[in-house]
Amino acid sequence: MHLADLQFIDILEYIGTFAFAISGIRMASAKRFDWFGAYVVGLATAIGGGTIRDLLLGIKPFWMEGPSYMVWTAVALVFALIFRQHLRRMNYTLFIFDAIGLSFFTVVGMQKALLFGQPFWISITMGVMTGCAGGVMRDVLINEVPLIFKKEIYATAAILGGLTLRLCSWLGVHVVVSEIAAALIILIVRIVAMQKQIDLPILKQEDEEAGL
Amino acid sequence: MHLADLQFIDILEYIGTFAFAISGIRMASAKRFDWFGAYVVGLATAIGGGTIRDLLLGIKPFWMEGPSYMVWTAVALVFALIFRQHLRRMNYTLFIFDAIGLSFFTVVGMQKALLFGQPFWISITMGVMTGCAGGVMRDVLINEVPLIFKKEIYATAAILGGLTLRLCSWLGVHVVVSEIAAALIILIVRIVAMQKQIDLPILKQEDEEAGL
Amino acid sequence: MHLADLQFIDILEYIGTFAFAISGIRMASAKRFDWFGAYVVGLATAIGGGTIRDLLLGIKPFWMEGPSYMVWTAVALVFALIFRQHLRRMNYTLFIFDAIGLSFFTVVGMQKALLFGQPFWISITMGVMTGCAGGVMRDVLINEVPLIFKKEIYATAAILGGLTLRLCSWLGVHVVVSEIAAALIILIVRIVAMQKQIDLPILKQEDEEAGL
Repeated sequence: MHLADLQFIDILEYIGTFAFAISGIRMASAKRFDWFGAYVVGLATAIGGGTIRDLLLGIKPFWMEGPSYMVWTAVALVFALIFRQHLRRMNYTLFIFDAIGLSFFTVVGMQKALLFGQPFWISITMGVMTGCAGGVMRDVLINEVPLIFKKEIYATAAILGGLTLRLCSWLGVHVVVSEIAAALIILIVRIVAMQKQIDLPILKQEDEEAGL
Repeated sequence: MHLADLQFIDILEYIGTFAFAISGIRMASAKRFDWFGAYVVGLATAIGGGTIRDLLLGIKPFWMEGPSYMVWTAVALVFALIFRQHLRRMNYTLFIFDAIGLSFFTVVGMQKALLFGQPFWISITMGVMTGCAGGVMRDVLINEVPLIFKKEIYATAAILGGLTLRLCSWLGVHVVVSEIAAALIILIVRIVAMQKQIDLPILKQEDEEAGL
Repeated sequence: MHLADLQFIDILEYIGTFAFAISGIRMASAKRFDWFGAYVVGLATAIGGGTIRDLLLGIKPFWMEGPSYMVWTAVALVFALIFRQHLRRMNYTLFIFDAIGLSFFTVVGMQKALLFGQPFWISITMGVMTGCAGGVMRDVLINEVPLIFKKEIYATAAILGGLTLRLCSWLGVHVVVSEIAAALIILIVRIVAMQKQIDLPILKQEDEEAGL
């Protein structure tokens, strides 16, 4: 991997981290969290999924390799403070950033699992977890029902990306091309689903009430 | 251990996984989660306790050894979809399955801790955690107060099973007999407590309000 | 370290564990948890932060070294049962105990990270996590928004203590003196902020609503 690749990947990673952190910070602010609370929720959103992946794989959490994730979350906090009047008008841009983060984190999570010798079904699980678990942690911390369990094609996009990566690898496509294809599938599915307001079906409730 | 034992143990494990997953899926459905959300909550209920145990013991999470736990959770999801009209009439069967799961997971959790050289007090902690933490994760994910902290003799049954295993081991009883005795104690305590509607006492509140 | 130091440190550790456990038990009781639920929430409050720290550092969770943390949580439960009529009048004492716990756990968490060769920015993260994450786990388990994200100078005190430790180390101050200075800073900031009712600013909401 030469320098140009590295920079492009770094840029994707920072965009994803920034977008995930912003989403945590905004939701925390909506619950009237203080600065510290907003920072922690932003950080959990950005690094939560990858941290759980690394703990399950038995390796050092990725964000402990260098302070850039904590710094980018701080940048997101300052950005949210300065532009709070304008954030709503940026909704679509932030949504695109978030979709870039989802596709990037999912592909990175899958490849990291494969790198550590895991089979495909674990790799796809780790990819989905890397992309989605941060958002679940965010919603648990702000005491809300996890958004991705009820609305939006979010995890489904990640799963489709994972299957794309597998298919490409099975067809012998070059790894970088496979990764880009998988990331694009996630990005496109996520954006189209949002614009067409497509949701997954819910499990219809048993008569009136359910629960064991 | 010959084949017949193995098969019997496998069957217990699959019954437990299925029952725990069903309980997660039903509660998620009652909160109008979509299919993906219901699957994740079902999976967390089934494997959450064992995963925390394995992370604390510093070993590879058990469900990463093979896809059967994720497959059984998928079976539970399909089952819940097909039989949703009939699940309420199956309440008692599912309750028995759940009690089997609790007793099986608790004994497995204890023995795994002992296998990794942990003392008894950690073993019983790990047993209770294996049996109970999945249900706590389920309730956190659906944004409800954990059921087992407020109602039902659930953890208490697991603790009594743990003490039984210890007593048997102290009396020199054969390990398989000890395990079966411990599992039966958990099963019986759980079923009797449910039928007699026995709860643990609550800590009476300080005057009107509490909290630091 | 000779015996007298060890004993003094042990006493601080037990005071902290007891105070953190009491805070979990009281909040669980206010939510009408049963004894088992109150015990688990008390335990999670007392050991939750250190457990996450140790998992992230890839080492054996500290409370698995010996049963004293589980025993002290049990003592706190019995204490809360016996003195439940009087706990409110002890509020200030318990607050001081809690502040001692925060300062002690934060310093211990920082030093443990440094001991395992981590850089300063991870050390301060681990210190804050050790002091604060147990309280967040407590609030997640009782299904409330984490208190320290909305009210009170809690994490800020821990961060200031961390910076003090760093400053002392940079100035070449003896490690024991540095630790005491850092702990005192945390204690004083926490107590003064509580008495003056100083809170961190919140991120003002974007117009009416926020969230991605």
